[in-house]
Amino acid sequence: MLALRLIERKRDGGRIEAGEWRALLGAYVAGHVPDYQMAAFLMAVYLRGLEREETQALTDAMLRSGGALDLHSISAPRIDKHSTGGVGDKVSLVLAPLAASVGIVVPMMSGRGLGHTGGTLDKLDAIPGFRSDLSLAQARAQLEHIGCVLLGQTGEIAPVDRKLYALRDATATVESIPLIAASIMSKKLAEGLTGLVLDVKRGSGSFLQTLDRGLELAHTMVAIGETHGCPVVALLTAMDRPLGRACGNALETEEAIQALRGEGPPDLMEVTYALASEMMLLGDMVADRAEALEQLERAVASGAAAEKFKQIIEAQGGNPAVVDDPALLPQAEAIELFRAARRGFIVQIEPRAVGRGIISLGGGRTTMEDVIDPGVGFVITAKPGDWVEAGEPIASVFARDEAGLRAGAAALREAIRIGDEAEPPLALITHRVTVSGVQLYATES
Amino acid sequence: MLALRLIERKRDGGRIEAGEWRALLGAYVAGHVPDYQMAAFLMAVYLRGLEREETQALTDAMLRSGGALDLHSISAPRIDKHSTGGVGDKVSLVLAPLAASVGIVVPMMSGRGLGHTGGTLDKLDAIPGFRSDLSLAQARAQLEHIGCVLLGQTGEIAPVDRKLYALRDATATVESIPLIAASIMSKKLAEGLTGLVLDVKRGSGSFLQTLDRGLELAHTMVAIGETHGCPVVALLTAMDRPLGRACGNALETEEAIQALRGEGPPDLMEVTYALASEMMLLGDMVADRAEALEQLERAVASGAAAEKFKQIIEAQGGNPAVVDDPALLPQAEAIELFRAARRGFIVQIEPRAVGRGIISLGGGRTTMEDVIDPGVGFVITAKPGDWVEAGEPIASVFARDEAGLRAGAAALREAIRIGDEAEPPLALITHRVTVSGVQLYATES
Repeated sequence: MLALRLIERKRDGGRIEAGEWRALLGAYVAGHVPDYQMAAFLMAVYLRGLEREETQALTDAMLRSGGALDLHSISAPRIDKHSTGGVGDKVSLVLAPLAASVGIVVPMMSGRGLGHTGGTLDKLDAIPGFRSDLSLAQARAQLEHIGCVLLGQTGEIAPVDRKLYALRDATATVESIPLIAASIMSKKLAEGLTGLVLDVKRGSGSFLQTLDRGLELAHTMVAIGETHGCPVVALLTAMDRPLGRACGNALETEEAIQALRGEGPPDLMEVTYALASEMMLLGDMVADRAEALEQLERAVASGAAAEKFKQIIEAQGGNPAVVDDPALLPQAEAIELFRAARRGFIVQIEPRAVGRGIISLGGGRTTMEDVIDPGVGFVITAKPGDWVEAGEPIASVFARDEAGLRAGAAALREAIRIGDEAEPPLALITHRVTVSGVQLYATES
Repeated sequence: MLALRLIERKRDGGRIEAGEWRALLGAYVAGHVPDYQMAAFLMAVYLRGLEREETQALTDAMLRSGGALDLHSISAPRIDKHSTGGVGDKVSLVLAPLAASVGIVVPMMSGRGLGHTGGTLDKLDAIPGFRSDLSLAQARAQLEHIGCVLLGQTGEIAPVDRKLYALRDATATVESIPLIAASIMSKKLAEGLTGLVLDVKRGSGSFLQTLDRGLELAHTMVAIGETHGCPVVALLTAMDRPLGRACGNALETEEAIQALRGEGPPDLMEVTYALASEMMLLGDMVADRAEALEQLERAVASGAAAEKFKQIIEAQGGNPAVVDDPALLPQAEAIELFRAARRGFIVQIEPRAVGRGIISLGGGRTTMEDVIDPGVGFVITAKPGDWVEAGEPIASVFARDEAGLRAGAAALREAIRIGDEAEPPLALITHRVTVSGVQLYATES
């Protein structure tokens, strides 16, 4: 009867109180509220929305549905990053060791890829022996020991989120900003953080394609963080083209290693340094971004960041030698250059088409049950705005076989548009959202 | 994948095409679309609405999900009545035999009561031996033989409606006008009708409490009927107080028998004659309402209407002697007069409170599994606007025992308001909706 009453109220645009959110989610996890009632409720939430206080209460109820990392004994700043996901987004693999190497404790919980976007866990799985299925107790011990852990979503944290997400995925109720915000924040708050940095992607390859929706998500998450004593800062970054050059699991892990060794592509480094700087500012470790950047660049140049990645890999059962010798990562069987079909400007590199190309190569998932091939993917060396000659190599396809090479080339032909006039891509980092509001992001500050 | 695509489209306010409705309902009945996807879809329909063409297509898809009565061999007008339900509404029991007695073929399919409203089947069940669970073949044979059948919703007709209704009931998606209209019309169209009369109740005791919603339902059903070659006429009638005096299953059956014998209360007779006149007009059997009324009154006065009810009861296994001796119906164990607590005008007799009173006496259902006591209920002799003295009997309570008498009296105290100034109740019949539009109903024509 409770569920029916709450469906009815939300259907009519009414408000669900904190105790009711707890009771509803508790009954759902216990199996007393059937999936079909929760599905009708979620659609009502999708179409009617939630007030700020309701989103807070929902987050809280999800958080309380499971356990949490108790990191109060660690005095260092405990800060994580979350990205709304994109193509070629290997920032987490660079950022986590880098931030840990300058003294931030980073309890990073990540997911797998689905559809056109990749997932950090899949990229880590490309490292021979690496395990992300740690218990909260193991994660805590590793944080105390080396300051960083890269783990998968454990059943111990916000278990109702997993059940709700599967239902949302099957009922077209994923793209609701309050539901997205509550899902992310319930898991992040369970990490025992003192701060969180958000990377909200915008543009055709992102989850929320308009600036307004991206800002709305950022504001919602900043507000939830504030209520829960966990300051949140969000940067809005471009996802109208892939980030960096490598797209595909092992290829992205290799590019992340290059980045940790100071050889990363400029756009990847810019986003990574910007997010890491926000983490240092949240941790009161530096006075301004310039000071943060100096320390971060030094951590890369000195080898400290790469060394931290080795420690993390070793602690989680992987082979740390990959950091010195990326050839130890899974390799594709067939590799072929992809050449520009005509001369002109690179007008567009459409991330969704690239993501679909990775799926067609066997390196992505359309359902969570799909098994992926870590070695396949693309390295796209051209960037929007570049001038290219006909026949000039602009990318490489990494595939399983000849058929894969053909599928990969077809995907790139669809993704990469060459024209007579360059169209300016989105600026890489455009907005910064904090509890004080939105600012335009000044790249040169 | 089809279901997910359609949920997404309806969620965003898009339109579902005829072939898609058929595919969706087909997959749902076959178990290929799970309840949780249908629940999310129904909530999206509830909140986004359906266009006229979509409601038509949904009705058609529901109709085609099952069998139908093939009555083409019967040349007489085949006309049924549907009511949106209320308290004390025993019109069907009077109207079906009355209409059949003047030559209309009436294939009437009815349901059971749930919540504060009663159901025709429950009233028929009060007749010893009466069976309403006939097959379509049996129903057809009876129609050919005596021109009327009173049957329950068979699994042969619109089977998807039963599954959908149970899901709507559990997900707060019942009160959607397109879903209501499609549900009713799919079943009525399967009766092989040449016309349908609708009794749309308005006022506090009705399903759709506002005039606007009542008119909207009427227009929707008239339009569906037109498309399917089945003219529909709707009357809007008052349900701000119970209809007639008896409320409770056997008590209402007894009042219906009295009505067929010419001893019915004026409001019940007025509504019954108005609906029966519309049936005769739809059947081109009379030139105007005056002529219809004359024939109908004659059928009652001559005993033809009561005789037809005996034939129906006998054909369906019941004891026809109840028509001459209503004492053969189930009786209450305890009966007590209910007296006015003060002098004044009867200001209100609230139907929902009366309906809840019947449930508290054991004569109604809160879930479809509840077993009901047919003998209990109320006979409320006072009407809104009547002047009463303190201590004057205004009703009787019919109960199982002493506790029932107390519960019944408490319900009547809540339902019946006496005050110093009379408030005019709704006019009994106010609007008539046809394919040409809405008219005010002229009672004296």
